[in-house]
Amino acid sequence: MRRTVCDLHAELVRYNLVAWTAGNVSGRIPGEDLFVIKPSGVSYDELTPENMVVCDLDGNLVEGEHSPSSDTAAHAYVYRNMPEVGGVVHTHSTYASAWAARGEAIPCVLTAMADEFGGEIPVGPFALIGDDSIGQGIVETLKGHRSKAVLMQNHGVFSIGTDARDAVKAAVMCEDVARTVHVARQLGEPLPIPQDDIDRLYDRYQNVYGQRSPR
Amino acid sequence: MRRTVCDLHAELVRYNLVAWTAGNVSGRIPGEDLFVIKPSGVSYDELTPENMVVCDLDGNLVEGEHSPSSDTAAHAYVYRNMPEVGGVVHTHSTYASAWAARGEAIPCVLTAMADEFGGEIPVGPFALIGDDSIGQGIVETLKGHRSKAVLMQNHGVFSIGTDARDAVKAAVMCEDVARTVHVARQLGEPLPIPQDDIDRLYDRYQNVYGQRSPR
Amino acid sequence: MRRTVCDLHAELVRYNLVAWTAGNVSGRIPGEDLFVIKPSGVSYDELTPENMVVCDLDGNLVEGEHSPSSDTAAHAYVYRNMPEVGGVVHTHSTYASAWAARGEAIPCVLTAMADEFGGEIPVGPFALIGDDSIGQGIVETLKGHRSKAVLMQNHGVFSIGTDARDAVKAAVMCEDVARTVHVARQLGEPLPIPQDDIDRLYDRYQNVYGQRSPR
Amino acid sequence: MRRTVCDLHAELVRYNLVAWTAGNVSGRIPGEDLFVIKPSGVSYDELTPENMVVCDLDGNLVEGEHSPSSDTAAHAYVYRNMPEVGGVVHTHSTYASAWAARGEAIPCVLTAMADEFGGEIPVGPFALIGDDSIGQGIVETLKGHRSKAVLMQNHGVFSIGTDARDAVKAAVMCEDVARTVHVARQLGEPLPIPQDDIDRLYDRYQNVYGQRSPR
Repeated sequence: MRRTVCDLHAELVRYNLVAWTAGNVSGRIPGEDLFVIKPSGVSYDELTPENMVVCDLDGNLVEGEHSPSSDTAAHAYVYRNMPEVGGVVHTHSTYASAWAARGEAIPCVLTAMADEFGGEIPVGPFALIGDDSIGQGIVETLKGHRSKAVLMQNHGVFSIGTDARDAVKAAVMCEDVARTVHVARQLGEPLPIPQDDIDRLYDRYQNVYGQRSPR
Repeated sequence: MRRTVCDLHAELVRYNLVAWTAGNVSGRIPGEDLFVIKPSGVSYDELTPENMVVCDLDGNLVEGEHSPSSDTAAHAYVYRNMPEVGGVVHTHSTYASAWAARGEAIPCVLTAMADEFGGEIPVGPFALIGDDSIGQGIVETLKGHRSKAVLMQNHGVFSIGTDARDAVKAAVMCEDVARTVHVARQLGEPLPIPQDDIDRLYDRYQNVYGQRSPR
Repeated sequence: MRRTVCDLHAELVRYNLVAWTAGNVSGRIPGEDLFVIKPSGVSYDELTPENMVVCDLDGNLVEGEHSPSSDTAAHAYVYRNMPEVGGVVHTHSTYASAWAARGEAIPCVLTAMADEFGGEIPVGPFALIGDDSIGQGIVETLKGHRSKAVLMQNHGVFSIGTDARDAVKAAVMCEDVARTVHVARQLGEPLPIPQDDIDRLYDRYQNVYGQRSPR
Repeated sequence: MRRTVCDLHAELVRYNLVAWTAGNVSGRIPGEDLFVIKPSGVSYDELTPENMVVCDLDGNLVEGEHSPSSDTAAHAYVYRNMPEVGGVVHTHSTYASAWAARGEAIPCVLTAMADEFGGEIPVGPFALIGDDSIGQGIVETLKGHRSKAVLMQNHGVFSIGTDARDAVKAAVMCEDVARTVHVARQLGEPLPIPQDDIDRLYDRYQNVYGQRSPR
């Protein structure tokens, strides 16, 4: 599990979702009230399975020599309040964060967005780090919503998934559609996709596609 | 053939045309009613000649341990209905998909576009995955058209070629001109190229240039 | 120290902050009135600890076979006039330089900007190379300012830090927020962050976060 | 010389100035009426000193197994008519080509542009491939001009230098300033730099800087 979470940080780097140390992945340890998360302030080049840290669902350090990521409280809040979530990712990826800076949801004008997010990617509240405000904002926005990603206002993106890899995929796809819809909007209005078609695409992707191919 | 199609996926990655697993290349097996295509949901790092799959022209799996790409039906429809086509590529590359989201053809304002596409890159219909709608939209748009690429509305790009490598080149060039024309349009109107000159450039590139240099 | 400064140039390349040889890092040698800086006109691939050069605080070459960077006078002026500074970085990174070309400060509309810069990133005067004008412009703008980076009008960015690595981090973060705020502004106005919240974020990041994780 | 010209193509790739095979470098062989140029249609990965080709100043193949680049006539025309030129580079780099598509010169609003180009980067005429039109357009625009680069309308960039490396540097810097000035203009008007200051910067860079550091 330490290795999986460690290695997934390389995907954040590969897809240019992070600058310096500003992004982190965590994964719930199956069957336990624990999760693995990135240590604070360690560069992506220096991450190893050994220096990843383990926390309980209150965000307390359980195992590891480094302090956990400064975003640990938000990850922990999500795991406490969304038992179906097995992975959480946080980034300040450029295009998604730009929508977040305007406090504007990304409209669903691409079939890939309908597949992965089932509609728009919503905006969460402005919240300060230091208590449970960010975690609450994530959970209030995503609970019962199809989207696996939320744009936290003036901040960045949190994405969730059934496991850490699934949450990383959501983070990658979120930036990808944030960029494409941004570029489309620069020269005019994208054409809307009818709600019925969004529903059909989402249903098919989550079921038919999912059954045939586990990841 | 498996090796060729496998290796060409690396070009999609190199030119940043794909995120996660969202893009695929196929190539017709010369002299047979079969084509090689990417397996579904396998990451580009894990592609090998061995895990590529072989399908017949109805899109049925003929050889391979994985399911074929979820876009196989569209590839198969193109091979069935355009016998001159030897390769098909599908991507959601950012700039081309942005034009597709607005349902707007890319105007031919670059000599490189006249060379490769012979004019504008056209828009195909909005079509849902699951039956032959996407394949029909591609064929109706590209049949008899000079362009080797079509922008499927709200979706992405399909490109064709005499073989898989030629179709990948069209996908790379499509994104390249989609980006350059987008950037040009951001600050004003690009100057048009007279139709006569577009015709001369296209004719020369397809004939003179082609004879001297086979690829 | 030569090795540290040499290796940090690779971060400028990695984050696409520099083209050709146009960017440089320097680091003060602790306890001495000297600093290590990039040699002039040497490409990033060819930098070694051995070809880095050492200058005194008037910018005179003290040790090394190459001429020091043509920006050495500006670095030296900063070290002479800001004793708390241990590292200086100069780049022409794209988005930051674009704000500089318009002579416009980057407004603080991202929490990551509040953390790292404590508010807006300010603009310094237009100044010609050749005397102390650039150094003076940097010091007048940054002295007593929270920001670790200044956008020199029509020119580029200078960033400072407690050491060379800290200044490189500021250069990386400056371009990152310059790009995100630019992208946000392209489609509307970003939402402001209240001054109180900026103050709280800055205070926490500089103190709490800093104590837990030294870099 | 073959090795030098071969290796310089890697810089075009590194700085993202080229897609597929659309860009080429040539270098005059000192003391002879010959130049080395890229073979036509060979990918950058496959370039070797051995497959580079040698042409005379009329563009005829003198040595090599491949056909010379389809842009050879333009390179040859420049060498015939500008004896001071030792290297020529052609690309369709995105931002420079976008200015070229609008037929708009890049205004000199960055000190790095004043240094390298001594003012604006000018636009050359629309010209078709196949005769000397492109070469004539380049020479008419650049002869007696400070700029080492010309934006050929609706086409791309040609840059010149004292040798091949110097021309590649001009191509890299041209795209870099084309992008930065584009980005600056997206959100307002860049501040002009007074002509006197442009002259001072250009003079210094070409003389003082040049003497201290030969490349």
